[in-house]
Amino acid sequence: MISPLLTDLYQLTMAFGYWKLRIHEREAVFHLIFRNQPFKGHYSVAAGLQTVVEFLEHWHFSESDLAYLRGLNAPNGNPLFTPDFLDYLATLRFSCDIDAIPEGTLVFPQEPLLRVRGPLLQCQLMESTLLNIINFQTLIATKASRVCEAAMGDSVLEFGLRRAQGPDGALSASRAAYIGGVTATSNVLAGKQFGIPVSGTHAHSWVTVFSDEKTAFSAYASVMPDNCVLLVDTYSTIQGVKNAIAIGKALHEKGHKLLGIRLDSGDMATLSQTARKLLDEAGLIETKIIASNNLDEESIKQLKKDGAAISVWGVGTHLVAAFDTPALDGVYKLSALRDEHGQWEYKIKLSEQMLKVSNPGIHQVRRFMQDGVPLRDVIYDVDHGMSSDAPHVDLLQPVFRQGQRVMLPESIHAMRERTLREVNLFKKSPHEKKYPVELESQLSQIKQNVIGDVLKKNKSEFS
Amino acid sequence: MISPLLTDLYQLTMAFGYWKLRIHEREAVFHLIFRNQPFKGHYSVAAGLQTVVEFLEHWHFSESDLAYLRGLNAPNGNPLFTPDFLDYLATLRFSCDIDAIPEGTLVFPQEPLLRVRGPLLQCQLMESTLLNIINFQTLIATKASRVCEAAMGDSVLEFGLRRAQGPDGALSASRAAYIGGVTATSNVLAGKQFGIPVSGTHAHSWVTVFSDEKTAFSAYASVMPDNCVLLVDTYSTIQGVKNAIAIGKALHEKGHKLLGIRLDSGDMATLSQTARKLLDEAGLIETKIIASNNLDEESIKQLKKDGAAISVWGVGTHLVAAFDTPALDGVYKLSALRDEHGQWEYKIKLSEQMLKVSNPGIHQVRRFMQDGVPLRDVIYDVDHGMSSDAPHVDLLQPVFRQGQRVMLPESIHAMRERTLREVNLFKKSPHEKKYPVELESQLSQIKQNVIGDVLKKNKSEFS
Repeated sequence: MISPLLTDLYQLTMAFGYWKLRIHEREAVFHLIFRNQPFKGHYSVAAGLQTVVEFLEHWHFSESDLAYLRGLNAPNGNPLFTPDFLDYLATLRFSCDIDAIPEGTLVFPQEPLLRVRGPLLQCQLMESTLLNIINFQTLIATKASRVCEAAMGDSVLEFGLRRAQGPDGALSASRAAYIGGVTATSNVLAGKQFGIPVSGTHAHSWVTVFSDEKTAFSAYASVMPDNCVLLVDTYSTIQGVKNAIAIGKALHEKGHKLLGIRLDSGDMATLSQTARKLLDEAGLIETKIIASNNLDEESIKQLKKDGAAISVWGVGTHLVAAFDTPALDGVYKLSALRDEHGQWEYKIKLSEQMLKVSNPGIHQVRRFMQDGVPLRDVIYDVDHGMSSDAPHVDLLQPVFRQGQRVMLPESIHAMRERTLREVNLFKKSPHEKKYPVELESQLSQIKQNVIGDVLKKNKSEFS
Repeated sequence: MISPLLTDLYQLTMAFGYWKLRIHEREAVFHLIFRNQPFKGHYSVAAGLQTVVEFLEHWHFSESDLAYLRGLNAPNGNPLFTPDFLDYLATLRFSCDIDAIPEGTLVFPQEPLLRVRGPLLQCQLMESTLLNIINFQTLIATKASRVCEAAMGDSVLEFGLRRAQGPDGALSASRAAYIGGVTATSNVLAGKQFGIPVSGTHAHSWVTVFSDEKTAFSAYASVMPDNCVLLVDTYSTIQGVKNAIAIGKALHEKGHKLLGIRLDSGDMATLSQTARKLLDEAGLIETKIIASNNLDEESIKQLKKDGAAISVWGVGTHLVAAFDTPALDGVYKLSALRDEHGQWEYKIKLSEQMLKVSNPGIHQVRRFMQDGVPLRDVIYDVDHGMSSDAPHVDLLQPVFRQGQRVMLPESIHAMRERTLREVNLFKKSPHEKKYPVELESQLSQIKQNVIGDVLKKNKSEFS
């Protein structure tokens, strides 16, 4: 369970302000969007929603949370919060409406992945946690999808635990990587928590425990005859392959199989070709060659190009640390707030960069398609609607209504299948390299009006 | 509590193998080292030990862990583990000796940050978890120290929650960033869990809630007069500064202070200079200027160079995602194992890259110093010892003996002080840019002998 204290302090000081000014229950709408595709890619894979749902289903300030807040002081030593505000937090229960794009859906910049509608104070308090969960899982699902695409249907195993950002960084990464398309994880706890297949055999340390590699391989095969993948590069790769072949033949004679050998260093294109030849000559045609060693989508593509005889890819560091774009730039912006008369006021944040000017309103994303192939997305305002005859789906689906979960549970396997299906359809899109996301024309006009209004009210020289 | 299942599956399959072969209780020695300084830097800051201690103090397979393992199958459908092995795991209690370099100490490639000595099976099972914890926290403490150095004594606030790797990625990052030298975090749960100061005031959303910026600032000052930092760039920065000044004067008249203004976009060197001038002219000379917006050590250095009038730095994404080196390359290698007669056998892993050939033996790191300034480090074998008259300290300190904690608790503030002190001393080192880490001569000779022996036993063409 994630505590509601997993938030930035300013969310709590603002919440206090809203409460003090008695505007904390005004109905507000916030959207969570990202602004740029990570990895210089053409799509992202939505992920993290189930984690958000679990967080919100248990969203409640405990006695110990409130005791901690009671002890916080302003720089001059005065208490930061008043006791009556903390009493209010103690009674607070999550009561918002949330709509979200299902995990495994392909998503694009400016599209709301989540829409949160409810009392201003609640919407504000959950901002940091939602961003933390959605930014990271979407980032990793996207990276995983790119790696799986490079592997062209080969199995990809996620090995990132030791290089991930702490225990839960690793768990979140394993979950998101599976949604993005990997076949299995090495992380046993992720397997247990999320029902993801787990995979693993032995490391270099197993080999160094024994007096020599042959003895080590033989010992491993004797204790794990049904799960035998031998790591062949502890001392010298080709000698290692030969030692593994001897074991493979012995296993075969006893009715077992050498499932694979693993290469973890050196020129893996050449080494894998030589290894394949040696394995085939020995009749071990079913023994797979697995590669690991700082792999990412680019090195996998290059190895494929160089004719590497590799059919399983172990990917760790570059996947879980999202090496080339280590953070998704998701933000969460207020876009509508009821005034004291109950009328919606549409809201924006300005910026000198047009990309950073937020969109006002209450949004839905409509995806137009032909034979399942996505053609373009349009962001529209739900109160103004959008008329369209062409085949489409609306991407945001109800998740919570007044704090009650309405979204049906979905298995992580179904999410992964969605990713694989959508990536394949997306490749047929005429706009694969630059997928169009438009603001619906009424919403676009509304945005211009709101910008004009804000500029007038703030008498600013902004243009 | 971190479950012992937070490990790679191959650790469990190897553990099963050791147990099956009855070598699981042989005494082994493993070292955790890293190979390259991250961020093209000259030092790293050790961090994560306390998290490791808490993990190991509660290291125990629960009934539900064992039930999960019972259900795991090999690819052919046979159970991966036997019931008697799982019964053994159920009885297992942590009983190793651990020595480690205290958190906040400056460390260098090839030096063991941890030495683990105990039954082979236990040492093996904890590998992935120790790497996960130490790699990430050391990485972030190092990045934080670099950012603080760039800030030249100014306060640095860690704002990274929304861009960190999941909930615990954020918590671990906040902890490590504080050890590395930051002043406070925005992450309230990190504040509660680790006793780190927390900091925060308001975001753009606060400003957009109100009809205009002046009203928003005035509302914030009315509810939080003792914790008032105004974010001035929602619509137009200079106009925002003027609005903030009006509020600052009003606060002052009521006996409060405008603590600061925050800039979050635009040309922050010029904007901060203009803002400083306007604040000073208004008599608000104590009001600080805080900057945030994708800052890192390089942009802070540049802003300092450009004469920015900024004295507090909010650093988020680039710090917690360690943008330019998103993973530390720590590894964990077997270096000694008792044979069936109880004699130590020294162990290595070979590699074509000399840097990746591990060091055999049971290690300690000796740091030679003059007036507290570090001169060079020497890795030596504790059984062979090292004679040296020059002033020195041995860095690895006892943490556990036979599974019992012997290390005294240390506050996170003391760890942070150690970092700040050591960084200052290190700057006086004659070898600051290329700090020497040597293998003691006897150990170096042992390493050559072990390499020769391994090559002979494996009849390899390796050279």
